[in-house]
Amino acid sequence: MDLKIGDLKDFARGAAFLGTGGGGDPYVGRLLVQQEMEKGRTISIIDADLLEDDALVIPVATMGAPSVTVERFPRVESVLTAVREMEKKLDKKAAAVMPIEVGGINSTLPLVVAARTGLPVVDADGMGRAFPELQMMTFGVYGCRTAPVLLTDDHESIVVVETPDNRRAERLARNVVVSMGGGAHIALYPMTGRQVKETAVRSTLSLALDVGRAIGVARREGVDPTEGVVEYFRTSPEQRFCRVLFHGKITDLVRETRNGFSIGRVAFEGIGGHSGDFEVVFQNENLVAKLDGRTVAIVPDLICVLDSETAEPVTTEALKYGQRVKVVGVSVPELMRAPGALKVFGPAAFGLSEPYVPLEKIETPGG
Amino acid sequence: MDLKIGDLKDFARGAAFLGTGGGGDPYVGRLLVQQEMEKGRTISIIDADLLEDDALVIPVATMGAPSVTVERFPRVESVLTAVREMEKKLDKKAAAVMPIEVGGINSTLPLVVAARTGLPVVDADGMGRAFPELQMMTFGVYGCRTAPVLLTDDHESIVVVETPDNRRAERLARNVVVSMGGGAHIALYPMTGRQVKETAVRSTLSLALDVGRAIGVARREGVDPTEGVVEYFRTSPEQRFCRVLFHGKITDLVRETRNGFSIGRVAFEGIGGHSGDFEVVFQNENLVAKLDGRTVAIVPDLICVLDSETAEPVTTEALKYGQRVKVVGVSVPELMRAPGALKVFGPAAFGLSEPYVPLEKIETPGG
Repeated sequence: MDLKIGDLKDFARGAAFLGTGGGGDPYVGRLLVQQEMEKGRTISIIDADLLEDDALVIPVATMGAPSVTVERFPRVESVLTAVREMEKKLDKKAAAVMPIEVGGINSTLPLVVAARTGLPVVDADGMGRAFPELQMMTFGVYGCRTAPVLLTDDHESIVVVETPDNRRAERLARNVVVSMGGGAHIALYPMTGRQVKETAVRSTLSLALDVGRAIGVARREGVDPTEGVVEYFRTSPEQRFCRVLFHGKITDLVRETRNGFSIGRVAFEGIGGHSGDFEVVFQNENLVAKLDGRTVAIVPDLICVLDSETAEPVTTEALKYGQRVKVVGVSVPELMRAPGALKVFGPAAFGLSEPYVPLEKIETPGG
Repeated sequence: MDLKIGDLKDFARGAAFLGTGGGGDPYVGRLLVQQEMEKGRTISIIDADLLEDDALVIPVATMGAPSVTVERFPRVESVLTAVREMEKKLDKKAAAVMPIEVGGINSTLPLVVAARTGLPVVDADGMGRAFPELQMMTFGVYGCRTAPVLLTDDHESIVVVETPDNRRAERLARNVVVSMGGGAHIALYPMTGRQVKETAVRSTLSLALDVGRAIGVARREGVDPTEGVVEYFRTSPEQRFCRVLFHGKITDLVRETRNGFSIGRVAFEGIGGHSGDFEVVFQNENLVAKLDGRTVAIVPDLICVLDSETAEPVTTEALKYGQRVKVVGVSVPELMRAPGALKVFGPAAFGLSEPYVPLEKIETPGG
């Protein structure tokens, strides 16, 4: 499909929803693409099945603590440099670019590259949501190597990280990002079309657009837009489980930037018939939601904080004391729930001691 | 000249002397080369004048806090990888390798590469001593670029740093070293033969061998070996000024590893006719020596701490409470004292407020 300028608000909103608190500011992300489209540049999003098996696909992203990337977003030129340097390194031209995660900025950055280069963007990514670390991707779970990672900044610096170990790639790249000032553009996990088909979470750009649209349509129709999202998932062919976990007001918020991550917890008190102590713990993204100490949703399932009136997604960076929100849980595809996947980005990967329980199997007071 | 196995002790000792407290453990450095020579491998050290103007010369080194590199020295294979990757990157074969500094380990590491590859080592380096940061080289002062910097570790990781800014290259590489576990092998400042002739501090490997020999000869002849060093400099064609600054016992020592550097200060009380409060401040290397609060030697001039009996050089890592030492000051070549050089590695570059005063112009109680 060709993305239209009128789709951008819905797309960025849906991407921020799936970003589950992380993935960057959807407003910044949208503006980046909008500037490109206003210059008449077009963006083609293609299904992974259209890729030749031996085509080179280059995932691109921005890396860093959200608080830094929002304030000091690197120039577009530096992500293009990352792509060109990756092509040079592999001595092969890219056939397409791809996001590594879904989120306000990292879903739109590949679109910017597409607009500038004419390359299509694959309708897929490596997380099906946002995660804080580079090794936390289905790409790696199903056999792709994170490295080479190409990092670029606004000062003509280019760093190439090579290692056979995906966790080491994350650690090396993370420290480079810190020394680049906290934010950098990256190209990584270069892979073949066949590897995309085997390892990526599919159709996540379309899903972002659909979710964003469902919220927009509900608003225009005067329906509670959070209900619009729940209804969308109930009827979509994707067969995802979706549930409102809590409706409340933020009463406490602790958030700090540590080791390049935005880490914290947020507490809510119920409104609109909801009661009890509700809490969400996050590391860039929301990791676990608890009601009166009982887990009601846990990573990798999505925990999405939405404005209580407009259902506009609220990133962990945008959380504010007193904010009224609805918190929604959404199940993720089986590809992301297999034992190998949970090992890389399940609860234990974040230091959480509780086991993963699929969202739809958790009994809640609300049903 | 071809280095002989019988030269190694003298060479490593002299290199540690010129390393002025830094540059790594001379014992470890010597063992590395000795292993190679015992296998029958030869090492050829050549004068810079023998290089073709367009020949590729690749400086190599180990990078990290001395306390880490002493405990966990990376395998030789990884420095060979750094050289090979640099050649690949520049699409040109190296004609020679070269040290970046003089010191126990960084003087001998290029010899190991020479033994393994058959490449000669240029009798020159970029510091004429040891310094803690990559931009602190005459290479850069006189126009060479630090990047590309190739960093390798023992886990098959390879990181390439590219930037037009030498200070940025240092910062990026330093953080990579930290995430590699605190120590890494590097290849950097790739340059032409002509650039070597224009920017390097010449004949520093020969000088290390000569200084080490002077100490060894004095010992065998029953002369005070520190006096042997002073006498060597007095009569050598290099025309360096050398003076014993203090003879004393270590009474206080503060040393910590911070930001990948070994930083601290050491205090002495006089013996053998010397009196007053003597103090040396260091950042990997000795930076300034003061007697009763008055500066008696300051960077870039050499401040060398020697065992009081044997004149064996004592690195800042090996300083110990109660140790009896003689502290010697040695002037450096004019190339290292020009305003452009002092800007990069003079007192202000280390946060010291006092100006540079050439060692031979400082009046001391001892003359």
